[in-house]
Amino acid sequence: MPFFRDWTSPDNMPKDGAMGPQLLPRWPAWFFRAAQGWWPKGHPRALLRTACMPGPVVEPRLRLGASIIICRSCSSTSPGPTGVRLTQERYPVQRLPFSVVSEQDLAAFERILPGRVVTSPEELAVANVDWLRTVRGCSQVLLKPRTTEEVSKILRHCHEQKLAVTPQGGNTGMVGGSVPVFDEVVVSTALMNQVTSFHTVSGVLVCQAGCILENLSQYVEDRDFIMPLDLGAKGSCHIGGNVATNAGGLRVLRYGSLHGTVLGLEVVLADGTILNCLSSLRKDNTGYDLKQLFIGSEGTLGVITAVSILCPPKPKAVNVAFLGCPGFVEVLQTFRSCKLMLGEILSAFEFVDAECMRLVGQHLGLSCPVQESPFYVLVETSGSSTDHDGAKLAAFLEHVLDSGLVTDGTVATDERKTKVLWALRERVTEALSRDGYVYKYDLSLPVDCLYDLVVELRARLGSRARAVVGYGHLGDGNLHLNVTTEAFCPRLLAELEPHVYEWTASQRGSVSAEHGLGFRKRDVVRYSKSPAAVQLMQGIKALLDPRGILNPYKTLPSKP
Amino acid sequence: MPFFRDWTSPDNMPKDGAMGPQLLPRWPAWFFRAAQGWWPKGHPRALLRTACMPGPVVEPRLRLGASIIICRSCSSTSPGPTGVRLTQERYPVQRLPFSVVSEQDLAAFERILPGRVVTSPEELAVANVDWLRTVRGCSQVLLKPRTTEEVSKILRHCHEQKLAVTPQGGNTGMVGGSVPVFDEVVVSTALMNQVTSFHTVSGVLVCQAGCILENLSQYVEDRDFIMPLDLGAKGSCHIGGNVATNAGGLRVLRYGSLHGTVLGLEVVLADGTILNCLSSLRKDNTGYDLKQLFIGSEGTLGVITAVSILCPPKPKAVNVAFLGCPGFVEVLQTFRSCKLMLGEILSAFEFVDAECMRLVGQHLGLSCPVQESPFYVLVETSGSSTDHDGAKLAAFLEHVLDSGLVTDGTVATDERKTKVLWALRERVTEALSRDGYVYKYDLSLPVDCLYDLVVELRARLGSRARAVVGYGHLGDGNLHLNVTTEAFCPRLLAELEPHVYEWTASQRGSVSAEHGLGFRKRDVVRYSKSPAAVQLMQGIKALLDPRGILNPYKTLPSKP
Repeated sequence: MPFFRDWTSPDNMPKDGAMGPQLLPRWPAWFFRAAQGWWPKGHPRALLRTACMPGPVVEPRLRLGASIIICRSCSSTSPGPTGVRLTQERYPVQRLPFSVVSEQDLAAFERILPGRVVTSPEELAVANVDWLRTVRGCSQVLLKPRTTEEVSKILRHCHEQKLAVTPQGGNTGMVGGSVPVFDEVVVSTALMNQVTSFHTVSGVLVCQAGCILENLSQYVEDRDFIMPLDLGAKGSCHIGGNVATNAGGLRVLRYGSLHGTVLGLEVVLADGTILNCLSSLRKDNTGYDLKQLFIGSEGTLGVITAVSILCPPKPKAVNVAFLGCPGFVEVLQTFRSCKLMLGEILSAFEFVDAECMRLVGQHLGLSCPVQESPFYVLVETSGSSTDHDGAKLAAFLEHVLDSGLVTDGTVATDERKTKVLWALRERVTEALSRDGYVYKYDLSLPVDCLYDLVVELRARLGSRARAVVGYGHLGDGNLHLNVTTEAFCPRLLAELEPHVYEWTASQRGSVSAEHGLGFRKRDVVRYSKSPAAVQLMQGIKALLDPRGILNPYKTLPSKP
Repeated sequence: MPFFRDWTSPDNMPKDGAMGPQLLPRWPAWFFRAAQGWWPKGHPRALLRTACMPGPVVEPRLRLGASIIICRSCSSTSPGPTGVRLTQERYPVQRLPFSVVSEQDLAAFERILPGRVVTSPEELAVANVDWLRTVRGCSQVLLKPRTTEEVSKILRHCHEQKLAVTPQGGNTGMVGGSVPVFDEVVVSTALMNQVTSFHTVSGVLVCQAGCILENLSQYVEDRDFIMPLDLGAKGSCHIGGNVATNAGGLRVLRYGSLHGTVLGLEVVLADGTILNCLSSLRKDNTGYDLKQLFIGSEGTLGVITAVSILCPPKPKAVNVAFLGCPGFVEVLQTFRSCKLMLGEILSAFEFVDAECMRLVGQHLGLSCPVQESPFYVLVETSGSSTDHDGAKLAAFLEHVLDSGLVTDGTVATDERKTKVLWALRERVTEALSRDGYVYKYDLSLPVDCLYDLVVELRARLGSRARAVVGYGHLGDGNLHLNVTTEAFCPRLLAELEPHVYEWTASQRGSVSAEHGLGFRKRDVVRYSKSPAAVQLMQGIKALLDPRGILNPYKTLPSKP
């Protein structure tokens, strides 16, 4: 079983694809390279050895009159087959009084989904751990429905039996939202991957929740449209998961958030009720817009089973400019000029700082295409005319170079070269992973002060940090603030938290711009939301999921 | 008191502005001309004469230990000073067991809002009736808070005393959502009209809910931005009301709905709790996106007191083309060409049929600028380059003319001429009002079948209808279907309803695309939403407003 080799040892790391299509999350190759180096040499985690996962043992527990399966690994202090410690051991969290999956439950699931009730340790191991290797549950069953009706029957059963459920899409989340914390039943959308319809005039795509974003992109691009969202995990993430987490990514600046582009949803509620709001209409003011509740609710209010989404026409011309700026003030002024001069064709405005560029050079061997600068900006245009877009971009570049906002730059128009420039921005995450242990923050801030915290932390941490970097979607006011050290250090963490959150709150920013709260960030919600807001969220949760079975321990704070 | 003259007689109709700025809703002049002719000659309503509104009479009722005010007009069968029958007499609706405003309540309000507790019959008469003259309440008090804290205190009092409340913005709604049905306390946002902040880089505007849309438009246009929404009622409507009704209008095609452009809201909940979700951030994934609940909830879940909204940069070039098409198939093909060839600069695609054009000619004296055709299309482009946009538009026009999709057309670039062309589309409503009694439907439909119902109804009704017309925001799939007759005819209504709703439901359309449900359409929600969806809406209402005091009798169906 090659999958159970120790991932903490580079020699034992599975090669891309070695796990076979079912076990291997479809992340780009670099994610696996990153995972390989996730625990740097010398880190305690890198010394751990794994044990074979024990088989299920049947003994009575909790529910009367039922045979119960529990898993030895749940009470084990072993890091498990993946080298990741169990969530219940690593974090202070108590199991809620849900039932435990019994043989009767498995038999009921088997009746609902013949042949698609997975209990094999290999598949469960993948479903139980997140790709960042920060959380690991010990679920004993993974269900693979194909239809909404099957999801409905599963939830009705779980609701009646008080079994907790974790909905899972591509399992590409950043905050531990898509894996079980304890032994929740995992309901995967992997087999719900059919396109229902696509309208070639309106650009409305209707599909099942388990469609992989990249496949959908290809599908609509073949029909001269594009998906309104794009993100690094597109090769693995499911559209249902994207919607459930209100995924941001690279196209928010141009096409807005999913709250605007999603036209309809089909959702199965906690008790199995199918809520069909799968409208394909751009306008519908008949009552409350219920679908909005589920966008960004991280599977805690219902399981999204189908999505209707508005796809923009495919741009005929795409240009990418990569520019060096002498300071952050100039980055902001370049952004302002961009909006004014590129107007409707501006489709991305991203930035990385010099430290990011150093890291992609050092760890990935990428070379900076422009003169060394304190900041670099990536500007993308997408439009319907090569000539017009080129002329607008040329005028913009002339202006920013003449005025000294930009000291050097390069432009690409063909797809191969634009990808090379995009890699300098998109591979920063990977370079950081290779630099050591990474403390990651995903903040929304007013653009004027977007970089201030990076400067402050760099001064505060001094040589105790290897790197303190800032990069991200400047056009959306979204900063990815990352700090690396050789190994995890609780004292450094104490210097970062709650300081980063308090500083963000003082600027009325968001402590989670696009990653969500999931399991790991659920207790920082109070830095961005008032007690009244959190209380209303809890009321909505209680209304929609009175037994609390849907993705428990996620999104809402652990303390009432 | 000129206002109390009989509006049903043209001679007595107040001239524009005659009521003074406080009494006169700031609608464009043509709305008043339209209102003047609302009941055509011969219609029973046109014969009614009004009585002076009686003063309040104090007598004990309902609540113990309190002096109670009731209004004789509430039980009167008179059409009241405005010539409009009371809602409770015209429609089958029963008053719910709310308290009645007492002297003690008035005193409490006076302590909260010194000098801004309005009980004068003149002002109340305006607040009690909708501009379409279809509904009229008999509220005895109108409150004019200036701050969110005042709104909070008002609602806390009303919640404790179980007094029903109707929030009111510009009172420009189409479905009777913003006036009391019985004697609800009217809480007006008229004095909450301050801009809080505007950010000239991000384009984020934060303002109080009572700001008039046109004033905001002017404010941001002075700073080179535009509001992401525009609609006929902009001279009177309040931004808070726009958000509460999820107003559509003319810019949805380009900038999307308010669910995407509204970044944050401040809302006062039924019990007076202030819910501050007034974020100015483009991205914020910290918990459920609560603001979405209130967008389109028509004041039934909370009173919106402030809005944060993302304004797009002001386009430097605007072109309008008015085109004649030989058939609806060609209209659809022209739309497809438009999207392909105009791409990112397309900002509106509207259509009117020949019957609409006949009516604007007959009633308003407007002349058709192109050769007579079965259909007319208005295409607007908004972009950042006069040259580029002109070139794109020219190429598009050449294509549609050469291919026979369009038989004749005209283009305007300067503001005066574009307004003339826009008037041909925008003044259709006015022309219809002058044609007789109007049966109005606002439907979302798949574009392919958008016009089918108009054709079918025209054949079905024959000479019993004066006109059966279709026009609207084709780019959004939004049809305004209107039927006119000399006078209101219940038998004709019975032919239209529920047929129009059933037909729309059969196409999975929406029976209210942009107007909302309010009071008059609340019972048709079931044609567009499933029982499970309606049940969830009712659950949300009960969660947020357990005593049901906020805008009762609106949005949710009358029968559980």
